[in-house]
Amino acid sequence: MVSCNIERLEEKIKTFSKFGDTGNGGITRFSLSPEALEARKEFKKRMEAIGATVVTDDMANMYATIPGSEDLPAIMSGSHLDSVRQGGNYDGVLGVLSAMEVVETIVKEKIPHRHPITVVVWTNEEGARFEPAMMSSGVICGKFDKDVVLASEAKDIPGYTFGEALENSGFKGDIANRMSPDKYAALVELHIEQGPVLENEGYDIGVVEGVCGMINYEFTFRGQAGHAGTTPMIYRKDALYAAVKTIQYLHDELDTLDGKLVYTTGKISAHPNIHTIIPDEVKFTLDARHQNPEVIKQVLEIIRKIPKEVEKCEVTCKEAWSRKTVRFTPDLVDYVEKSANDYGYTSKRLYSGPGHDAQYVTDIIPTAMIFVPSVGGHSHCELEYTPIEYCLKGANVLLKTLLYIDQHS
Amino acid sequence: MVSCNIERLEEKIKTFSKFGDTGNGGITRFSLSPEALEARKEFKKRMEAIGATVVTDDMANMYATIPGSEDLPAIMSGSHLDSVRQGGNYDGVLGVLSAMEVVETIVKEKIPHRHPITVVVWTNEEGARFEPAMMSSGVICGKFDKDVVLASEAKDIPGYTFGEALENSGFKGDIANRMSPDKYAALVELHIEQGPVLENEGYDIGVVEGVCGMINYEFTFRGQAGHAGTTPMIYRKDALYAAVKTIQYLHDELDTLDGKLVYTTGKISAHPNIHTIIPDEVKFTLDARHQNPEVIKQVLEIIRKIPKEVEKCEVTCKEAWSRKTVRFTPDLVDYVEKSANDYGYTSKRLYSGPGHDAQYVTDIIPTAMIFVPSVGGHSHCELEYTPIEYCLKGANVLLKTLLYIDQHS
Repeated sequence: MVSCNIERLEEKIKTFSKFGDTGNGGITRFSLSPEALEARKEFKKRMEAIGATVVTDDMANMYATIPGSEDLPAIMSGSHLDSVRQGGNYDGVLGVLSAMEVVETIVKEKIPHRHPITVVVWTNEEGARFEPAMMSSGVICGKFDKDVVLASEAKDIPGYTFGEALENSGFKGDIANRMSPDKYAALVELHIEQGPVLENEGYDIGVVEGVCGMINYEFTFRGQAGHAGTTPMIYRKDALYAAVKTIQYLHDELDTLDGKLVYTTGKISAHPNIHTIIPDEVKFTLDARHQNPEVIKQVLEIIRKIPKEVEKCEVTCKEAWSRKTVRFTPDLVDYVEKSANDYGYTSKRLYSGPGHDAQYVTDIIPTAMIFVPSVGGHSHCELEYTPIEYCLKGANVLLKTLLYIDQHS
Repeated sequence: MVSCNIERLEEKIKTFSKFGDTGNGGITRFSLSPEALEARKEFKKRMEAIGATVVTDDMANMYATIPGSEDLPAIMSGSHLDSVRQGGNYDGVLGVLSAMEVVETIVKEKIPHRHPITVVVWTNEEGARFEPAMMSSGVICGKFDKDVVLASEAKDIPGYTFGEALENSGFKGDIANRMSPDKYAALVELHIEQGPVLENEGYDIGVVEGVCGMINYEFTFRGQAGHAGTTPMIYRKDALYAAVKTIQYLHDELDTLDGKLVYTTGKISAHPNIHTIIPDEVKFTLDARHQNPEVIKQVLEIIRKIPKEVEKCEVTCKEAWSRKTVRFTPDLVDYVEKSANDYGYTSKRLYSGPGHDAQYVTDIIPTAMIFVPSVGGHSHCELEYTPIEYCLKGANVLLKTLLYIDQHS
């Protein structure tokens, strides 16, 4: 059975870990930062060394393509090279490095293929310095207005825009190079799971069927401030206690829904947030995700049942954002599963909780994703880790999946 | 019946409201700020105009004394002129202005009195710019080390100390002028209630029997961060949910104790406080106050029963500070009640929730306090308000109380 090379893959991971190395096992590599540009140069150098032609589009998305034996649209794989602050060495970059290793294997082993094969690097997936996340796949897939994202300001430098960073990067290319259905036949993105399920349940590979639909709500409770020492309990309008009761209500109710639902209150704030003052305003968020839109509807129903007044405090809520469930291309999902089976790897079909560039691309061309386990479920932190044996399994499944697509497209 | 003058008292309130006027109905008058020094100068000018001798001690506490007919220790009344940021026109200053009005009434009406009468202004009661609160009454009553408080840094200017502000104020005087039992026979402090009880229950005057004992605890919950979209509910260690369950437990248990107990969670923080991340650390405070130390013991017992682990999160707590119940001098408390009765004012015996300078002074000389109603219970904000009719009732009760003390001491 054809296989990628574990030493080569490991060397790639080690080399790319140097670009933005925090010294604590992780990286800070904001999109288009000097560290990210170093990583891009290394990517270009290595891809050209194995015979690829590298072009960029107007959003600095990079496409490194080796020719196929026929004049067909290319099959793509890749992910992103940028990270969050003090992120890890796997989120995004492993998808690029695996695709590089797959192409290197195809070239070195002279594996026949009809379609050109492209390794893609999407610009600014994390949105860590310039919002929004998944910016450049989003622009070329029609999700974001290009002018708006070009004007996006750096979180750390007022007035410094993404557009300026793009101009200064040296990687801004031609709009004609954008991914489009006439030039590309399919995309397969490998990514770390960013959660604990594969590891805890003992699976090698996640066969990603889609991306969970999600809602994010912000709740506001307005009560009345008062001195902790002078306001009898019966006169209080304690916005924090109203919020506490509502969080408990949400847990009680949401726990009755399908067990695959995940929901989180990650953010809470109290005003004036002084230990001797009864809070007059408290806000918290609710993030809820499920692959089945019907379950998301049930969540909304539970939210709607929250009274307008809790503990004499006024309750309001608004949707901060939402995302419909994305379903990847069934044939491609089947190829991922079949490829894992071919190697004797255990696999589990699942939905991604977080968003990925692939979820936008799937509106344009057939798309699938492969997950590899995240040890301890850690992600977006320096603890992020996937053992090299699992990275290799992922790369092998990616290789085989691309070859299946090559045969059947 | 002898009475203070409502127009004079109202004029005093209006005049002092100009020193630090926010333009929104309140004041910002940090201790020893330019605005506070203007108020002190006005105080000195007015007291000297009615024949008082004004001295200051080494903490800039001011003592304005009119002589009595006998060579006896003075009877004191007063409070503080400083405010919190965007505070109101009554907290503290009304106690000074009422005492000024009482002395002016005694002088103008030639009311006979054996003891000298002193209007006192305590320096830095609020602790809004330099901590701690009740700083200067605390120093002279042996609660705080003078060297420590002199080194207290301004919250807004690193390195600028209270000691420097004191030297620059022009109001630093002689340590020999400190309040002491050989020079002073008693203190009565008038203050706004800062709570809604008197107004809601329809009383004119609060006869303050003491200051509630209190405890302040900080709780910390340590769980594990995780992505909101990738971590199944069963694997979570959600520090915020652990905190929510504990706040609910505290409410459930504390509500079974005596109805006069007040308790507050005023401050809460979550880390990393991002809507898509399960919080790994949450902290909240619990402030609890009651006049009976036995009830405070019951509160501590409830705190002790919190498990070391809640929702798989580690729970720790520590006492941030505590205060024992302070009881004022029973004879003086009786004089306050009797004085209210004399005028036909309705009164209620109660304990103060917040702390006041008088609680330190009571360790040194006999002490009592008089409360007047706070409309809506508002305090430490620009909404703070006590109608002039209630201010006058308070001043009259203060006048009569001082005269009772004068007769019986």
